[in-house]
Amino acid sequence: MPRAVFDSSEYDRRIARTRARMEEEGVDALFVSDPANMNYLTGYDGWSFYVHQGVVVTRDRDEPVWVGRGMDANGARATTTLSEDSIRAYSDDHVHSPHDLHPMDFVAEVLRDLGVDDATVGLEMDAYYFTAKSYTRLQEQLPEADLVDTTLLVNWVRVKKSDQELAYMEEAARISENAMQAGLDAIEEGVPEYEAAEAIYSALVDGTDDYGGDYPAIVPLMPSGDHTGTPHLTWTDRPFENGDPVIIELSGCRHRYHSPLARTTFVGDPPQEIEETADIVVEGMEAALDAVEPGVTCEAVEKAWRDEIAKHGVKKEDRIGYSMGLGYPPDWGEHTASLRPGDETVLEENMTFHTIPGLWFDDFGVELSETFRVTSSGAEALADFPRRLFTA
Amino acid sequence: MPRAVFDSSEYDRRIARTRARMEEEGVDALFVSDPANMNYLTGYDGWSFYVHQGVVVTRDRDEPVWVGRGMDANGARATTTLSEDSIRAYSDDHVHSPHDLHPMDFVAEVLRDLGVDDATVGLEMDAYYFTAKSYTRLQEQLPEADLVDTTLLVNWVRVKKSDQELAYMEEAARISENAMQAGLDAIEEGVPEYEAAEAIYSALVDGTDDYGGDYPAIVPLMPSGDHTGTPHLTWTDRPFENGDPVIIELSGCRHRYHSPLARTTFVGDPPQEIEETADIVVEGMEAALDAVEPGVTCEAVEKAWRDEIAKHGVKKEDRIGYSMGLGYPPDWGEHTASLRPGDETVLEENMTFHTIPGLWFDDFGVELSETFRVTSSGAEALADFPRRLFTA
Repeated sequence: MPRAVFDSSEYDRRIARTRARMEEEGVDALFVSDPANMNYLTGYDGWSFYVHQGVVVTRDRDEPVWVGRGMDANGARATTTLSEDSIRAYSDDHVHSPHDLHPMDFVAEVLRDLGVDDATVGLEMDAYYFTAKSYTRLQEQLPEADLVDTTLLVNWVRVKKSDQELAYMEEAARISENAMQAGLDAIEEGVPEYEAAEAIYSALVDGTDDYGGDYPAIVPLMPSGDHTGTPHLTWTDRPFENGDPVIIELSGCRHRYHSPLARTTFVGDPPQEIEETADIVVEGMEAALDAVEPGVTCEAVEKAWRDEIAKHGVKKEDRIGYSMGLGYPPDWGEHTASLRPGDETVLEENMTFHTIPGLWFDDFGVELSETFRVTSSGAEALADFPRRLFTA
Repeated sequence: MPRAVFDSSEYDRRIARTRARMEEEGVDALFVSDPANMNYLTGYDGWSFYVHQGVVVTRDRDEPVWVGRGMDANGARATTTLSEDSIRAYSDDHVHSPHDLHPMDFVAEVLRDLGVDDATVGLEMDAYYFTAKSYTRLQEQLPEADLVDTTLLVNWVRVKKSDQELAYMEEAARISENAMQAGLDAIEEGVPEYEAAEAIYSALVDGTDDYGGDYPAIVPLMPSGDHTGTPHLTWTDRPFENGDPVIIELSGCRHRYHSPLARTTFVGDPPQEIEETADIVVEGMEAALDAVEPGVTCEAVEKAWRDEIAKHGVKKEDRIGYSMGLGYPPDWGEHTASLRPGDETVLEENMTFHTIPGLWFDDFGVELSETFRVTSSGAEALADFPRRLFTA
């Protein structure tokens, strides 16, 4: 009895749009191994991406074909509506095999069985979990195939969200608000970092009164003290000290859809330098959000931020946001449109971005983020959480 | 001020042993991209593996070289003792770039700078996060190099644990015990699955009275009801029902070292079939542990389990365990030795395994696991938790 996360008509539309792109690019079959793309096309959901797996889409077969490990076939039955003939599982001696067996040998068999072993086959060459070995193995097994790079083909299909997807992102935003409040409440002088992480995690999974939360694709990040200049550190046993800035970046997750949120707090009285930096970040963020509307380019949004902070003599080199939504570890980002110079992607209604214009210096950083939806006339932040520097 | 997780002499030994293997295999330089291997060789720790990164080890340079994204260089400074010349960072326009820029272009530059661009360079061809594109890009950029597959070279160096590594795994085991108890306490009829997941997660991060827990490389897995035949599903909003078997598989984590533990509980009075299955799993597990000692092969341990369950007319095809310890998402396994037919790896003192001999049928499954260390004369389970079917 599969879980009904989306109507089957939604999956049909996704596959039709994927096929249209395949046709444009002259691709006969697609082997999709990014777990977010597998989920997008079939609903498949499970912590099985630590072994090789994928979904095959061909131009003429109605259903995609799930390919994975034997013990995960039940997971495909539980989370997709694929028919039995569209669930193909390899035996366990393919897993970390001491013999010369690789899961891609089985994938090649499936492609032969589907009659596309001498066709143009698209591979997600730069996707998580599609290893170099997977590629060389498919090359060996499919000498007649024309293997081409279709890394972001499905990701670009994902960029505009449906109403149901947006509803899940809204649900995730409620969770993000609760978790942010829990984190801010937990942080104080003398409390070890992991206790604040525990409060955040607990709120992320506990969700709201009406529903629970999934595991997020990125763990809560909480760099503190002189490590706020280091955005991807995780928590330690260190107690918070008076004088610590602490950045909290987290995301609620609902049916694998995210709504990330970041805020900065300060243990004790913040020095003027940090307060001023926080004000600049807030002003820059609001300038960026004000610039959003359908028809505007991604780079124009970044420029609005950059122009605003330049008034204060501040320059920042990194991008300030990216398209996101559905995701699995290690990332909730889609790797498609980015808010940065040179990205000429034109905004359309119901695209969703995480904009995270932090300012990091060698000894401290201030971060503030919003997940927003492009509306018919502007930007709508999904979470409702004050935009300011907090104190603990 | 780097965190001191291990003495520098421990990293020196690890690198010396890695170099010895490189010499045996005729490899001049190694590009290590598995985050666990990066940590093992340098101490580097951060949630940055969603972008391309790695560590280069050459035969003659004293220090390995960390290569990663600009904003993560501070993370390398914070978690390693590498000198500034051994931290090489690429600019942000390499990240999900709309231009034709790839982080491996920068890695190739580093290899040229280290004078190994015309040497034999080992790549972790089948490691997480080393994509097909990374490989083809290095091929293009290093036409003079001989690129060879060294996927598990460092993983095999990791197999025997040091005293300090074992101490962290013991600490992780204390966390696993607490989290398992929290999960068992939380599960009861009418409670939604996510509330049990929340109790487990909270205990995993809260750790013990003396220290906190890191995020585990795999989220707590908690398949229930007819999904116990589906080992890798995660929690949902469904309330537990009378008659549900529930499998809990989790791991505490300390400085990225794990000690996984699995148990099965039953909501209500378990039917005889499940009680009998649980008894068989316990007996089989104990037969396997009794078979462990230095000098014995991995396949002999699996055979002890298989012979024991065969007495009850039960056959199981999957492997029943694997070497593990240090890890990042998506896996705490090392991908080296497995407890399964055909694996002739000889056990040595201070190897560590997670043995997880579940029996899964189409409509229910029973799982029980232990993390054990090979001692001078047998097996020592790291956690102290009753081996039986629980009831809720």
